[in-house]
Amino acid sequence: MATPSSLESLIEALRCLPGVGPKSAQRMAYHLMQHDRTGAERLSGALQLALDALRHCQRCNTLTEAEICDRCQSTRRDASLLCVVETPVDMNMMEQTHAYSGLYYVLMGRVSPLDGIGPRELHLDRLLARSCDGVVREVIIATNYTNEGEATAHYLSEMLKSRGVSVSRIARGVPVGGELEYVDAGTLAQALRERRPLAP
Amino acid sequence: MATPSSLESLIEALRCLPGVGPKSAQRMAYHLMQHDRTGAERLSGALQLALDALRHCQRCNTLTEAEICDRCQSTRRDASLLCVVETPVDMNMMEQTHAYSGLYYVLMGRVSPLDGIGPRELHLDRLLARSCDGVVREVIIATNYTNEGEATAHYLSEMLKSRGVSVSRIARGVPVGGELEYVDAGTLAQALRERRPLAP
Repeated sequence: MATPSSLESLIEALRCLPGVGPKSAQRMAYHLMQHDRTGAERLSGALQLALDALRHCQRCNTLTEAEICDRCQSTRRDASLLCVVETPVDMNMMEQTHAYSGLYYVLMGRVSPLDGIGPRELHLDRLLARSCDGVVREVIIATNYTNEGEATAHYLSEMLKSRGVSVSRIARGVPVGGELEYVDAGTLAQALRERRPLAP
Repeated sequence: MATPSSLESLIEALRCLPGVGPKSAQRMAYHLMQHDRTGAERLSGALQLALDALRHCQRCNTLTEAEICDRCQSTRRDASLLCVVETPVDMNMMEQTHAYSGLYYVLMGRVSPLDGIGPRELHLDRLLARSCDGVVREVIIATNYTNEGEATAHYLSEMLKSRGVSVSRIARGVPVGGELEYVDAGTLAQALRERRPLAP
């Protein structure tokens, strides 16, 4: 009487998606198999293609299909500014403000002791080397204004200032407790313009 | 500067999932590629497997891996009762009440003139043949208590009664405007027990 095993596996597999619980997964699986087999086919292929094609940029760490991403290779960006963000989505949000023309470093995470992610797990040595390469004049920390983002910013600023790097933080125009991903571009542009140097 | 094309395609492909808009799709794609490549791999495979394995049961129309599904083949079910539901999920909900031991017919839809789905598009000839096979004594209509579900129930009852088939409707214990999928098993069991014969 049970659900067919291939359907059961699909429901289970759909739960890897963030925010998808058992009910939604069931609904999605039946929807795909009843009403959108073409979409399911396309999704299966797109997942495989993305898995094969995507890797981390050797310079900024974001997801890309090349060794070095387009943005890092561009000669039209101001290489003396380096903006540190938590995720590629946050980087996209920064770009959408059209208020920043420097380069980026994507942490791919944040300091989060509860999840066992300390400064060591974030592999900050590459960020440090990059910040001290003589080209970068200012590192702008644009981690989230959450507890973890703040802890990350604090750790980064201490680390960079001890090496004599000039560090700033985007203004607290981002609502406290909020995440960059869900902020409108105007607010984020303001926060970028009002960035303040961190006290030594 | 754009998002890599394979990532763009994945975001687009994820939008085939019900309830997933551009923001969620983006979040899902980055989550999978950053944090859960194993899950993405499993999902891609599960989709392909389900697409290959699943088809419609020749008797009740639900999704199954065999010609005739386990439930229809069971000798322990009461073949004189036939319960008509809109979707396989609704059928699962009925099963979870443990208040029904008959068989099912899954419409895989509902009468919905606005979506261009009339009685013709639902291929009701097989349901009609099944209802008049001499084994079925009562057809229980368990479509949703939405406008479309009610219209479907009305059409089905007219069609079946004109052939002399005994028809009933689950009680209106299901909240008006609600959908079976989101009702608790107790309420649904009550609605099943209090089913009433439709006036001739």
